[in-house]
Amino acid sequence: MTITITAFEQSPDQGQGQARDMRVRWALEEVGQPYNVRLVSFQAMKEPAHLSRHPFGQIPTYEEGDLVLFESGAIVFHIAQRHAGLLPDDANARARAIVWMFAALSTVEPPIVELEAATLIERDKPWFADRLPLLDERIRKRLDELSARLGDAEWLDGAFSAGDLLMVTVLRRLEGDGILEDYPSLCAYVDRGKARPAYKRAFAAQLAVFTGAPHRG
Amino acid sequence: MTITITAFEQSPDQGQGQARDMRVRWALEEVGQPYNVRLVSFQAMKEPAHLSRHPFGQIPTYEEGDLVLFESGAIVFHIAQRHAGLLPDDANARARAIVWMFAALSTVEPPIVELEAATLIERDKPWFADRLPLLDERIRKRLDELSARLGDAEWLDGAFSAGDLLMVTVLRRLEGDGILEDYPSLCAYVDRGKARPAYKRAFAAQLAVFTGAPHRG
Repeated sequence: MTITITAFEQSPDQGQGQARDMRVRWALEEVGQPYNVRLVSFQAMKEPAHLSRHPFGQIPTYEEGDLVLFESGAIVFHIAQRHAGLLPDDANARARAIVWMFAALSTVEPPIVELEAATLIERDKPWFADRLPLLDERIRKRLDELSARLGDAEWLDGAFSAGDLLMVTVLRRLEGDGILEDYPSLCAYVDRGKARPAYKRAFAAQLAVFTGAPHRG
Repeated sequence: MTITITAFEQSPDQGQGQARDMRVRWALEEVGQPYNVRLVSFQAMKEPAHLSRHPFGQIPTYEEGDLVLFESGAIVFHIAQRHAGLLPDDANARARAIVWMFAALSTVEPPIVELEAATLIERDKPWFADRLPLLDERIRKRLDELSARLGDAEWLDGAFSAGDLLMVTVLRRLEGDGILEDYPSLCAYVDRGKARPAYKRAFAAQLAVFTGAPHRG
């Protein structure tokens, strides 16, 4: 059955791969599933047709026959459940990999999104500069804990999993903020993720949307 | 195998059921699994023994034989995978219920936690009052979208699921903030969750920690 995902027609990052369709593209590349992409404008995202697929008016969505999903974490999980390569077979190892999926999105990502939101929404507010250290500190607390757990391991728990896939995309949101750079082991971890052939194919596919190259499926 | 979870020895909310062990207790009650509770102090949460179970130094954790899990979302998912009652059998319906688990924790909860964090950390800052409308607006946007999707349905997608369980606990965090009250259908949704016998048993069990009544497992 054909898989169709949605992505931004005009990405705020112009193809740096920070939009959340990147996670889904990467997961599909890891498991070797072809997919189609339907690009949606910011206006279309708020219209009934898209809202019927995604009640929060965001991307990505995932369609496969009658099945319509949203939430990048849930879509990556669905792909990992249906196809080998993103979650261990052993039940306990699988449960622990799923822990890292939730940890990436529920514990590590929110303070990073807060920094982005402040920069986007509150840059002109008189308190913006004074609040930055608070935002920075909350992110660093999580990175301290995450790097302590990772230690010198290659991935968070055994082999590369959907948990690592999500964590790498979450940490990538910090690129250029001058925070992640203080955590060499996390930078190396992100680099290992970005070096995966599936990541590279996914990155090239999302970039092609903005460079005008034909996008691949 | 015996299930042991961790919870706050001293809860910030003194048993209002806002701590994240409530989600796990509720899930275990829904599927009829007994469990033990180990209470941890704020100091113990930052010590190596607890950090080995939970790298971010939080509660709850979940131990079952050799398996150690953290992240309330992942623990609820594990319980729902192992026992009937929290996820539909049909594969597509199951994938959609999992969407709501991620939506609750990744999309709806973060702006609510931001309001809590601001109230906790920034109450004395000169900008606190001026920022409140921004925080309020971000929450209301999500509640607008969520209530539009819920409509007059009983639960988010068919029968009660782990997605509803998490969403109800997320929305409960707003109790007393004067925001949720503007969404009667969401209040009724939360009330339906709280009316479930399993919820009531879980709530009573976490409350008993703080009232001195013997806690049940």
